[in-house]
Formats: sequence, structure tokens, C-alpha cells
Amino acid sequence: MVRGGGNRPLIIDIHGHYTTAPAAHQSYRDAQLARLEDPSLPAPAPAAISDDAIRESVEHNQLKVLRERGGDFMLFSPKASGMEHHVADPAIARDWARACNDLVARVVSLFPERFAAVCQLPQTPGGGVGDAVAELRRCVTGAGFVGCNLNPDPSGGHWTSPPLTDPSWYPLYEALCELDVPAMIHVSSSCNPATHTLGAHYLNADTSVFMQLMRGDLFTRFPGLRFVIPHGGGAVPYHWGRYRGLAMRMGLPDPAEALLGNVWFDTCVYHQDGIDLLTRVVPVANLLFASEMLGAVRGADPATGVAWDDTKQYVCAAGLAADDLRQVLEGNARRVYPRLDALLTAQGR
Amino acid sequence: MVRGGGNRPLIIDIHGHYTTAPAAHQSYRDAQLARLEDPSLPAPAPAAISDDAIRESVEHNQLKVLRERGGDFMLFSPKASGMEHHVADPAIARDWARACNDLVARVVSLFPERFAAVCQLPQTPGGGVGDAVAELRRCVTGAGFVGCNLNPDPSGGHWTSPPLTDPSWYPLYEALCELDVPAMIHVSSSCNPATHTLGAHYLNADTSVFMQLMRGDLFTRFPGLRFVIPHGGGAVPYHWGRYRGLAMRMGLPDPAEALLGNVWFDTCVYHQDGIDLLTRVVPVANLLFASEMLGAVRGADPATGVAWDDTKQYVCAAGLAADDLRQVLEGNARRVYPRLDALLTAQGR
Repeated sequence: MVRGGGNRPLIIDIHGHYTTAPAAHQSYRDAQLARLEDPSLPAPAPAAISDDAIRESVEHNQLKVLRERGGDFMLFSPKASGMEHHVADPAIARDWARACNDLVARVVSLFPERFAAVCQLPQTPGGGVGDAVAELRRCVTGAGFVGCNLNPDPSGGHWTSPPLTDPSWYPLYEALCELDVPAMIHVSSSCNPATHTLGAHYLNADTSVFMQLMRGDLFTRFPGLRFVIPHGGGAVPYHWGRYRGLAMRMGLPDPAEALLGNVWFDTCVYHQDGIDLLTRVVPVANLLFASEMLGAVRGADPATGVAWDDTKQYVCAAGLAADDLRQVLEGNARRVYPRLDALLTAQGR
Repeated sequence: MVRGGGNRPLIIDIHGHYTTAPAAHQSYRDAQLARLEDPSLPAPAPAAISDDAIRESVEHNQLKVLRERGGDFMLFSPKASGMEHHVADPAIARDWARACNDLVARVVSLFPERFAAVCQLPQTPGGGVGDAVAELRRCVTGAGFVGCNLNPDPSGGHWTSPPLTDPSWYPLYEALCELDVPAMIHVSSSCNPATHTLGAHYLNADTSVFMQLMRGDLFTRFPGLRFVIPHGGGAVPYHWGRYRGLAMRMGLPDPAEALLGNVWFDTCVYHQDGIDLLTRVVPVANLLFASEMLGAVRGADPATGVAWDDTKQYVCAAGLAADDLRQVLEGNARRVYPRLDALLTAQGR
């Protein structure tokens, strides 16, 4: 498939989740959790789901919206809130991650010109990263995945893990660097009634991790490590001066210089003023187009008729120069995800 | 004292902390904590601090900066990170809050034309609000305080308390309504290594609480309750579309209509782009001028020479109409803090 329309950029949405998987997949999860409560139950097997069922689950949802909005391609990962890393059993985490990733791989195999896969890692509260490394290797080297989602808080809102700068995470970073894939920082459901999953926990995680990175020197040790902070970076770009001023107070290097060789923000910010701020504050080279549809929000702003998560409209209206816009929509994604670039190049795109 | 310069607004900074209290105050705190470890130690008494020492601690710090920047008045509360509500002993919490508040009251008594007092509440993880109500009453009715700081997470980063919409908080809200004082939502130090106090925990708390309020109907039950969410509302205004879209998805009323009769945001956002977003997204009637100096950041942006927390410069450059600017700098504060208005009116201002 060759890109149409001459010189227009390929529009790559780097943040989509399989929030619409067939119900049988959730039934498998339910059976896993039931057996955790009652070990006398039989070990469940991942759901047998037909290609048609998978096609249907995507064609009328993410793919339909992608087409309607003029998008070309989406990085697709398992439903983030469904990762449920707070379930502490390592075998269940391994089986669940494998089943979720295998399902995403099937979506990709059915629509290879529309999707590339990003994997869920089998994490648990207090668990090591060995299982995560193994699943990452399986997905990337065995099944063509181009990235992963890394949960900085497997406890689900209690924040019992050490910061991402802690050496306990290093084996995962070594694998990410070796495989040359980035990690998107993405928590899962909140188990904490004080912090709503979509309205607090996701954004708080983005904010917390940026500050963790600011205080460490992870990228000196891992210069090839690449993190994508989703949801427009949580609170960070809005408080850009706070972070720069904090760095000054704490004797740390300016984050605008120290972190932006290794950290990118996506554009999942659901109104024009937010995207305007993001594109003004963060260098264009550090922005990755994304919508997270079908994700946190549904529907359209009654005042404008624009769907909340139609971030392409906001990004295109942010006043970026044409070359800059091309970087945000396509170029940066191909640079941050070299395995995506290879896939697209092999498709002649 | 009559306002000078004819018709210019009084510039009221509603968010200042006594971060510069004389060292003897911290020694009292240290002795409290030492006795918690070793009950055989004598019960310490609050530090004996002279008027001169208090004058000096403020004159060369907050008061100096206030004057230099052309500010007129500041709402002054104890150092937020020093509240340390995670220390679970209720008697220690009561004694510490009282000592902190008494010291702030002395600052006000020395500079009544520059400061009015906002109190710390004696909260503990898992504790009831009875002590908080008692201290609030003592401060407001006995010592002329005009507001309080309410910590939604006394645990200090573990978020073990129920959301602010939980009925366990109601007795405090009844007292706030009866006394007609607002509460600023303000956490204290983070005890969680994953969430830095100034770079994550403060902002996350602002964000979390807004979502808590969105999901409840607290202001139907307490129509006179007023909350100030500091630090520009955490991540909320930057993600205004996300909140409106979430509300739509969840079948909740639009927060722009449901919450803004009872919730205000301060202007502690330390760069022009952030303030521009805040003033564009949030109605002028819901903005309260504040700097939080001397607070999270120190120094100036090397690119502009503007001190990070000189938020007056950003607010004045945000393109607000003169009447709107007057509301942000003065009018809204007098409306949200009626006891402040009474104090100023009594001073002929």
C-alpha cells in the first residue's frame, strides 16, 4: 500500500487500546479470577475467538473512527484498565498478559496496514521484572510488537513500587534498549476509591513519573531508553515552569534539556486550549500524535460538535508549521518506534 | 489604611505559607516527634519566640517579596509540607496545629495590614474530624482566621482516606458553612518515594479531589461549602475537555456547570503559557490570584528574568479585561473569603 495524496503525512495514532475485545476474552479473565478464589476450579484456557468476531469488534469501533477522522495507522495495545496488575499472582499475570497480547497480535494480523502491536507486561505488586522481560522478548522478537506499556504502579493506586529510577527496574530497561523499543508509561485500574482511574490515577501517574525521572539520572545510564508519557504528560506541560523552577531549587538540570532526549508526550488532551499549550511548551520533536480512542471519553463537545477525543482536529488547528505538524503526525513516531518505521517501510509507506 | 493610587485593585495573594518560621518552632516539632519515640522524654512546650524574631522571619522574606512585586495583602497559613498529618497521634496533631496556627496569628497581629490567617487542621490518617472542627472554631471565632487548609490525604501519599464526598467529612463541612469560611485543599509532605511532595503529590491531590467532587453531589447537600483548589487546579484545567467528556460518558453533569458555584482555582502556575490556559478555560469568577511564595520554586527563568512564582506578571499579561483582572486580583477573594472582606473593610480598604 502506497501512501495516497502525494506528500501528505501518514497520520499515526500511537495510543489506541483494544477496549472492545469480544466478551469471551473477559469471561476468560473472570474464570482466572474465580480460580484464584477457589483453586479447585479447572484452569481456564484463553477464549477461542473467531477471526470474524475480532474483525467485527474493531471494524465498527477503532477502525471506523480512525477512517472517519482521516487517520492512517494506530499503535494498538490491550485495554489499559484491564491489565489489572494489582492481582498479585505471577502465573495469572503471565497468562493474562499473554492472552491479551495474543489477541492484539491477531487484530494486527487481520489489519496489518492499519495497526501495529504494543504489548502489556505481566507485572505484579512487589514482583520482579523477570516475567515482564520474558513477555516483552516474546512479543517483540516473536510477534513483531513495536513497543510496550509499562506500569509504574502495579498496586493500582497505592504506589507501593519504587520509582522508575530504582535499579530493580534496570533489567527491563536493558531489554528495551537491546530490542530498541520504547515503553509508554501507563497505569491500569485504580483500586483506590480516592483516585478515579480515568479522572485521576492515569494523569497522576504521568505527573509522578516525570518527577521521578527528573530526580534520577536514568538516561545517563541508559541513553537509548525511550519513554512515552501519555495523556499529554499529565499535569507536566501545564506546570512546565514549576518543573523548571523546582529543578533550579533542587540543583537539578533543567528538564527541558535533561529529559527531552528520552521522553516524549502524546497528544491525548481533549480540548483545543490544552493542545495549544502542549504544542507551545513542549518542543515539536517531543510530541507524538495520539487520541486513545476508544478510551476515557465518549461523545462530542456540545458547544463545538467536535468529538472530545478527535485530537487530530486540535493538533491540526494548533498553528504548527507544516513540517512540524508532519513530525507530530508521523516523523516522531517513526523515530521513537524504529520497529514501526521498519514495518511501514516494508509496506512501502 | 486607605488604598492608594485611586482605583487600582487591591492585590490579594490568597496562598502564602509561613515557610520561614524561626528555627525554634521546628525544634519544638522535633521534640514532639522524639517524645513519640521515647515517651519518657518530657512533654515539650511550643517555642518561646520573640516578636522581633517573627518580624525578621517575615520582613526579609514573604513581606519583602510581596512589596517588591507590588502586592498588597496575603492569606498566610502554616507551612504545608510541615503539617505532617501522617503522624498518627491525635494529641500531637492537636498540639502541633495549635502551635503552628498561634504562630501565624502572631504574624498577622504584627502585620495586620499585610496578612490574614488561614489555619492548619489537626488531621491524622484514619482519624475523625472532631479535632479539626474544634481547632477550626478556635481559630475562626477566637482568633480572626478567615479560612483553613484541608488535607484530603492525611496519610501523606498513600491515600488511605475516603474521598472528600464521604459522609465522614460532613461534620467539618457543617462547621465551614456555619462559620462561612472556605477550605483550601492542600496535602502535606509525601511519605511515598514514588510521589515527590512538590513535583507530584501536591498536583496529584488537586487533580484527584476535583474528580472526587465531580462524582459526588456534595454541593447539593452543602450549597454554601467553598473549596479552593490550589496550584492552578493540578492537571484539571489542562485536561478540561477530558473532565467534560468523562462527565458525559459517566452520565454526570458538566463540571463547568455543576462545580463552579463552589470550587475555585488559584493562579499558582509558574509560566505564562500555563496562566494563559487557566484564564482561558476557567471562568474569571472562579480564579483567585496567588503565588505560594515562598513555596515550591525559587529563582527566575533564565530566559526571561521573571521569577518563577511571580504569578502577578503572568496574570497581568494574560489579556484579561480590566474588570476581570480586578476580580481575579481582589473581588473574587473578598467574595470567597467573606471574613477577609470584613477585615479589609474594617481597615477602610
